[in-house]
Amino acid sequence: MPKKVDHQQRRTLIADALMRVAADQGLEAVSLRHVATEAGVSAGMVQHYFRTKDEMMAFALSVVRERSQIRVTEAVARLGEAPAPRLLLRTIIAALLPLDAHTRDDGRVALAFLAYTAVRPTAATGLREGTAQLTAFVASVLPTNDVSAAAGLLALMEGLGVYLLGGQYTAEQALDALDAQLDLLFGTPATA
Amino acid sequence: MPKKVDHQQRRTLIADALMRVAADQGLEAVSLRHVATEAGVSAGMVQHYFRTKDEMMAFALSVVRERSQIRVTEAVARLGEAPAPRLLLRTIIAALLPLDAHTRDDGRVALAFLAYTAVRPTAATGLREGTAQLTAFVASVLPTNDVSAAAGLLALMEGLGVYLLGGQYTAEQALDALDAQLDLLFGTPATA
Repeated sequence: MPKKVDHQQRRTLIADALMRVAADQGLEAVSLRHVATEAGVSAGMVQHYFRTKDEMMAFALSVVRERSQIRVTEAVARLGEAPAPRLLLRTIIAALLPLDAHTRDDGRVALAFLAYTAVRPTAATGLREGTAQLTAFVASVLPTNDVSAAAGLLALMEGLGVYLLGGQYTAEQALDALDAQLDLLFGTPATA
Repeated sequence: MPKKVDHQQRRTLIADALMRVAADQGLEAVSLRHVATEAGVSAGMVQHYFRTKDEMMAFALSVVRERSQIRVTEAVARLGEAPAPRLLLRTIIAALLPLDAHTRDDGRVALAFLAYTAVRPTAATGLREGTAQLTAFVASVLPTNDVSAAAGLLALMEGLGVYLLGGQYTAEQALDALDAQLDLLFGTPATA
């Protein structure tokens, strides 16, 4: 006998399919029909869970964000109690950068979503709140507590992500740039 | 009597239409037919100049890049002879940021293209060369000549562009973050 359908599970199945389509072929290939085929369900089923492409996109991004948060939490947990501020920031940012195959797939979806929200600013409300919260947190960890320096560090992280996905920077170049920035913010490693 | 068709002019007319479609409705709305309608020409005409969407995208990006270069050249020319390195970098980066309506439209196209190349890395060859050249130039202007610091500054610029387009940062916040970064790289204004 079929058990009760787990709606959250099915939404996630469909969102995963969307992300595979977006990661393989780009956002412009994402359609209800294409996602249904990839998920192995009917187009009607997809429409039952997501009335519009916007809804589906927003849900996919929320899945990506949730996974990022889990990665950050796990990486920070591995640092043990009371890590040094510089190491804490480096660990968080490295966990958010698209440095391996998994995070690259998520990064492509996030970048596609950013390009999407650039023409539909209302879809970016959640992003704005997330960025504001992260800026305040980073500022609280910096020696200067400077909000503009924190905003700059987050922008640097975002730009490194874009350049990693586009192949302009290698993983090594991106991490070197991150370390150079932390040198500027915290003083060189010898004094940190 | 109709004069000889100016092919470059017609390609630019079509690329402009593509950019209006991409800026208004996002990259996924860009199709040969849609662009033809916007440009007021036939779909066959568009196909005569651009065999594929990839070709059309690459040409549109080259138009955006050309316009950026003109903006940078003009802004630098206004500085007069031998500007201070810090002022030179600030002027170049500010000219490249999407701070007004015109540059925002171009920025949306560039961001859409970045999302596009993240799934088609071969399309990004030109971008990679451009970024490498710009990194070398920025390093030559920095007091430390440090390539990683230069790579970080460019990533920060790219991230500021993304956050400006998504509305996460206001123009003022983005310029404050840029100035904070230049303080870090050149010392505070009092010592610059």
